[in-house]
Amino acid sequence: MATFLSPGPTRPSTATQEPEKEFNICLVGSGGVGTIAAVVLEKSGRARVTVVLRGSYGVVNEMGFDIESVDHGDLKGWKPSRVVPSIEEATFAPRTAHPTPLPTGAATPMESPRERYDFLVLSTKQLPDKYSLAQLVSPLITPGLTSIVLIQNGIFIHVPFTTLFPTNVTMSAVSMIGSFTEPPNKVKQIGPDILQIGAHYHPGVDDSVSAERTQTFIDMYVSGGAKSCILAPDMMLARWAKLLWNAPYNCLCALMEMTVGEIQSSGAREKLVEPMMREIVAIAKADGTKLTEDLVQEMLWRSPESSRYRPSMLLDREQGRPMEIEVILGDAIRKGKELGVQAKVMESVYELLCLVRWKSENPIEKGEMHIG
Amino acid sequence: MATFLSPGPTRPSTATQEPEKEFNICLVGSGGVGTIAAVVLEKSGRARVTVVLRGSYGVVNEMGFDIESVDHGDLKGWKPSRVVPSIEEATFAPRTAHPTPLPTGAATPMESPRERYDFLVLSTKQLPDKYSLAQLVSPLITPGLTSIVLIQNGIFIHVPFTTLFPTNVTMSAVSMIGSFTEPPNKVKQIGPDILQIGAHYHPGVDDSVSAERTQTFIDMYVSGGAKSCILAPDMMLARWAKLLWNAPYNCLCALMEMTVGEIQSSGAREKLVEPMMREIVAIAKADGTKLTEDLVQEMLWRSPESSRYRPSMLLDREQGRPMEIEVILGDAIRKGKELGVQAKVMESVYELLCLVRWKSENPIEKGEMHIG
Repeated sequence: MATFLSPGPTRPSTATQEPEKEFNICLVGSGGVGTIAAVVLEKSGRARVTVVLRGSYGVVNEMGFDIESVDHGDLKGWKPSRVVPSIEEATFAPRTAHPTPLPTGAATPMESPRERYDFLVLSTKQLPDKYSLAQLVSPLITPGLTSIVLIQNGIFIHVPFTTLFPTNVTMSAVSMIGSFTEPPNKVKQIGPDILQIGAHYHPGVDDSVSAERTQTFIDMYVSGGAKSCILAPDMMLARWAKLLWNAPYNCLCALMEMTVGEIQSSGAREKLVEPMMREIVAIAKADGTKLTEDLVQEMLWRSPESSRYRPSMLLDREQGRPMEIEVILGDAIRKGKELGVQAKVMESVYELLCLVRWKSENPIEKGEMHIG
Repeated sequence: MATFLSPGPTRPSTATQEPEKEFNICLVGSGGVGTIAAVVLEKSGRARVTVVLRGSYGVVNEMGFDIESVDHGDLKGWKPSRVVPSIEEATFAPRTAHPTPLPTGAATPMESPRERYDFLVLSTKQLPDKYSLAQLVSPLITPGLTSIVLIQNGIFIHVPFTTLFPTNVTMSAVSMIGSFTEPPNKVKQIGPDILQIGAHYHPGVDDSVSAERTQTFIDMYVSGGAKSCILAPDMMLARWAKLLWNAPYNCLCALMEMTVGEIQSSGAREKLVEPMMREIVAIAKADGTKLTEDLVQEMLWRSPESSRYRPSMLLDREQGRPMEIEVILGDAIRKGKELGVQAKVMESVYELLCLVRWKSENPIEKGEMHIG
């Protein structure tokens, strides 16, 4: 445990200088969810984790993360094995890692070895309307070798990966963690890390391989001290179930700038949340996943009546960050259209959230005209 | 014209003290629309107008209205024949109007005469969710005598009146005026006063009587110098046509806190406005009113592309006043339900606007919980 408390130096990536860990892992998206995942994976003792940091690289590289965690305690100045400022830097061993003069037999700067990652963990926000995450991280993926782990919101988020990387294992996780960042380098985990992880089976990879790699990742994650990490044998069921809560509550809270408790007290649970859930059930059914009435009721009534929970999209809106409209609402609606299932309430909420997005991207000063 | 420029004293209501005007009119709702209507009616020379003022009675009784009008010029300190602070005061001649000692033959204070109004003009906001306007103004209505004139938003707003006052003429006006108030006593009319007025025919009154009284009111209104006041032979068509613009644009602007131009530029015209218009067309059709495709296209494209117009409900929301959700959206949706016509986009927008209303009525302090 002590190793997690002291910030280590950025370690070079070549095998010659230290004992190899069992797995070489790259993690992109070191926010509330991702940083805790990095802690867990490093704590397992089986992984060497390279974390890609964009905005916060400078401060984290210098000071590490200051983490307060219900699962892992206080970790001041914590660093993973390596932090890098970009995907490019994660791809190649940094040239500065080679001491001068070069020891006999070491790789020369002219042939800096390409990293091979056993697992690529993606815990970024999902913003397919802004960029293609699968294309962005493609330099980190070795065909047939790197297993892709998506700890992210949405439904069908695996499709770009199984399409672009048809010979790679792709798995995803539904995460229930309560964790968020505070600039410049704080991570506060106030809710336990509870994950369900499952493989997205696809023709390019033997199912047995997908299952084995998924179980390996779960075992590693469990040994790293997560509160709970279990296999989801039917990953689409787990993702639809998560969406059943997320699509109505997350989207309505963001659109109306209301907490979950306010949505519930206002009558919107009956008027909007439940109709949206029924639309999700219909789309999931057409897509081959049955969501039971018990599950609908559980999701409808799961949150405490006066919950002050502000879901992720509301926090994003409040903090001027992009919202995950497409993966939490848009993709399900598009799947419904493809399968001939109408989802009129979801569609309206989606279009209105697109207006929120449009407004944030097109700020204009307020006029004074009142005439029509 | 000079009489409109000088604030007159509050005149007593008894006939013994001045020559009677042809029509005795009470006007309730002296906002941007109503105050200009009062000016027009007084300017016709045929009407003695009593204006009921609630919040602004004190200041207007003392100083009059300061009006800037594209139709009537600048009217500083303008007052109608009489201003009163309440419906009760409008109902009975104020006792203070009787000089002491009483002249021989005058009405005694013990038998202060009940007002009889030829026309009751209502230009308040329509808030059936807050109170019943028809019940509220019933003391001002003499059965079989007083004609009711509704210069208000909404559809089916005549129904409470034809129901409660089955022997009275009820007419309504669709107004296109651009006019608003500025506390404490300013009225700014920046768009010309263009009205269509038509009778709501109903079994308790001969159609010929309804038509005659409506034409009389129109003639008076025209002679008072309105920019345009014409008969709408099919008043429901005129009201549905107005709603065709109002329901989508007014409601979406209010819900999203966007101008008409922003709604148009954002893509919402295609994604939300037009679908809502199509729903209105379907409900109107089931209700017996045909709205043509030409009309839909006209309403869709009527406003200038970059219009900075902030419709009434948006202004209401911004200024913390109640919004006319029920008459602009709710009533049409309910009519659709009654007639078996679905209006899913309108329903969603309606429910979301109800949340805006709920929020304004249930303010709570922001929490800091982020966990789910």
